[in-house]
Amino acid sequence: MPVKLAAPDPASLLPIRGVRLGIASAGIKKPGRRDITLIELAPGARVAGVFTQNRFCAAPVVLCKQHLTHGNIRALVINTGNANAGTGDDGLQRARQTCAAVAQLMGCATEAVLPFSTGVILEPLPIDKILPALPAAQADLAPDHWSEAAHAIMTTDIVAKGASRRAQVGGKTVTVTGIAKGSGMIHPNMATMLGYVATDAAVAPDLMPQLVKDVADVSFNCVTVDGDTSTNDSFILIATGQAANAEISDATGADYAALKAALSEVAIELAQAMARDGEGATKFITVAVEGGRDRAECKQIAYAIARSPLVKTAFFASDPNLGRILAAIGYAGVTDLDVNTLQVYLGDVLVAEKGGRAASYTEAQGAAVMREADITVRVALNRGNVNATVWTCDFSYDYVKINAEYRT
Amino acid sequence: MPVKLAAPDPASLLPIRGVRLGIASAGIKKPGRRDITLIELAPGARVAGVFTQNRFCAAPVVLCKQHLTHGNIRALVINTGNANAGTGDDGLQRARQTCAAVAQLMGCATEAVLPFSTGVILEPLPIDKILPALPAAQADLAPDHWSEAAHAIMTTDIVAKGASRRAQVGGKTVTVTGIAKGSGMIHPNMATMLGYVATDAAVAPDLMPQLVKDVADVSFNCVTVDGDTSTNDSFILIATGQAANAEISDATGADYAALKAALSEVAIELAQAMARDGEGATKFITVAVEGGRDRAECKQIAYAIARSPLVKTAFFASDPNLGRILAAIGYAGVTDLDVNTLQVYLGDVLVAEKGGRAASYTEAQGAAVMREADITVRVALNRGNVNATVWTCDFSYDYVKINAEYRT
Repeated sequence: MPVKLAAPDPASLLPIRGVRLGIASAGIKKPGRRDITLIELAPGARVAGVFTQNRFCAAPVVLCKQHLTHGNIRALVINTGNANAGTGDDGLQRARQTCAAVAQLMGCATEAVLPFSTGVILEPLPIDKILPALPAAQADLAPDHWSEAAHAIMTTDIVAKGASRRAQVGGKTVTVTGIAKGSGMIHPNMATMLGYVATDAAVAPDLMPQLVKDVADVSFNCVTVDGDTSTNDSFILIATGQAANAEISDATGADYAALKAALSEVAIELAQAMARDGEGATKFITVAVEGGRDRAECKQIAYAIARSPLVKTAFFASDPNLGRILAAIGYAGVTDLDVNTLQVYLGDVLVAEKGGRAASYTEAQGAAVMREADITVRVALNRGNVNATVWTCDFSYDYVKINAEYRT
Repeated sequence: MPVKLAAPDPASLLPIRGVRLGIASAGIKKPGRRDITLIELAPGARVAGVFTQNRFCAAPVVLCKQHLTHGNIRALVINTGNANAGTGDDGLQRARQTCAAVAQLMGCATEAVLPFSTGVILEPLPIDKILPALPAAQADLAPDHWSEAAHAIMTTDIVAKGASRRAQVGGKTVTVTGIAKGSGMIHPNMATMLGYVATDAAVAPDLMPQLVKDVADVSFNCVTVDGDTSTNDSFILIATGQAANAEISDATGADYAALKAALSEVAIELAQAMARDGEGATKFITVAVEGGRDRAECKQIAYAIARSPLVKTAFFASDPNLGRILAAIGYAGVTDLDVNTLQVYLGDVLVAEKGGRAASYTEAQGAAVMREADITVRVALNRGNVNATVWTCDFSYDYVKINAEYRT
């Protein structure tokens, strides 16, 4: 069950001027399931994305990258139930056909449409089901359908994920709303996730690629469920430019910082929601590594802990078997790490220092922290001043059950 | 349950001239459990080892490395139930005290004793229990106690692991016998494993470090259960020199090759036994990657597949959800990999080529292979002539159960 996570109140997801969303049912995997989402952008919207590093990246990812060079994105089309990955040239053609059909409906170029798919890999995309459902999605377009879209893009997610913020940017109020899906096959660069964050702020097109990367680095690239990197991960940032702020064109300025902060808050909330809704999750785990020489080594250690099946089953059992955390730190691959000068904390409890268990530590202290649903593991490396934080969940019977039965 | 694996017939484990083994019960974790193994080596035996790369390596690993520089190893002492890892300076002292006590019994230097521990991390080694049990282990020393030792070094292993071979080396018959333990926290460099392989062949001391590494590279460094690298992994090669063969001093000669082959056969059998006895295993999986440019990229891809929780749960479910294999190949980190020119086989069935599902593939074919207990995944990279093979097991409910309840 998701850990302290509820679907957002639909009214809490604020409309973004210049964005409308429409939902429809194509019955891709199950009849009647609302599995098609169309997002329409007003002319002038700026769009940028970051995508999976997987070499077997899905056909829609290939097309997204091509179409983003086009520069005038007018629509996004998302299906669940089929990933259109591992589908070769035929998969590319089917993704292109989907874009062309949307383009025809919306009166724009095929290259102005970004396609997204999530679901089973290695099966042909059923365009015979998808194309006929597109007109219904178009007819459903409305500015306040963010919550419906958050539900429609789910796969094994139990809870829909969405968040909104308002912020002051250049003396104007801007709004940020995001939705995401993902609960398994989750690992950075990126998680098996689709994430869409939109704002009405005006941002110079040249700045969009950096902004989406800056936001991803502190949010979606800090979450892991099982270490498996998906073929389809995509995070898209949309800036419609309708908030009347002066266009942000300087990445070192206050306006950029203010907008980045608001976007990051939304993206972090969505990323944490993925770990809270991690397949079979019973605990939400924050792994904070501090005092490293660079962010890379902090992340390396944080991910070694967050990915370890042994650490994750110990959390599931509420067993303070902390030696497993030490072992993960030790094999993280930071080859010059001196384990005698670091400290490990479980919550506020000092667990290990000087290469071994802290003299002050008692099993009862560890057990008390382990009973919580939200747990923080903190590692102080004491060799620099850089930090990194990663979010994950525990590893339960239900993870195995969900993934063993995924296709049945 | 172990996959097609039975404990070796005690009579099949051949004595090695110059090696005697003794077992005793120290009651470290459970009263009455035979948890202490003493191995006595005749003067002149050559010993070399390879050890975990974990930065949190255990105290006995630190001491082993120091003592191996001493050069005249006369005894090995192994305890289960406690890893003496994450124990700092105090742990080193306790390991040294154990060696000193063995040295006093055997009439040798403390540095002539190699210590090994396996079990729970982060708890003090109970030398108050271990030291009093050593005389009983010494009294039990006998050349034919290999099977007893194979049982005594087990932790979560269900089946004891041992193997023997005879080979002709330099016109003489030499014998090789090995035992090992390990079933979880298994990943190369090394697995959570202890492995001991002895031969009566004569080998020049200078050649021993290369020989142990050559053997480990094709055996213990090719197995993974959960990707967790232990703090205590040790593989020790012993050559007692009592087979009357001309001392092997040339790594390019026929004698070296013949001995290496026999040692590797034993070590591979032991390494495969660890995967067959992997925690919760219901399937034994061989991942063979062929046609790579170098061994590193082949291993990288093989391990990405063998470590993926999604792949492993699909094997558990006997579900040919082969997209997960493609995804793992894609995220293995071989950044210039062209997924359109590789083929993936499940058993003998061509599953994927040209970036997608093979036209000839049917779900029924995949399902038939998946029902087997021993399954081979083969990836043909078609970009070189180097191969690598990795062994693993599937990921079941019982893996979670075993590791969630390990300390209870």
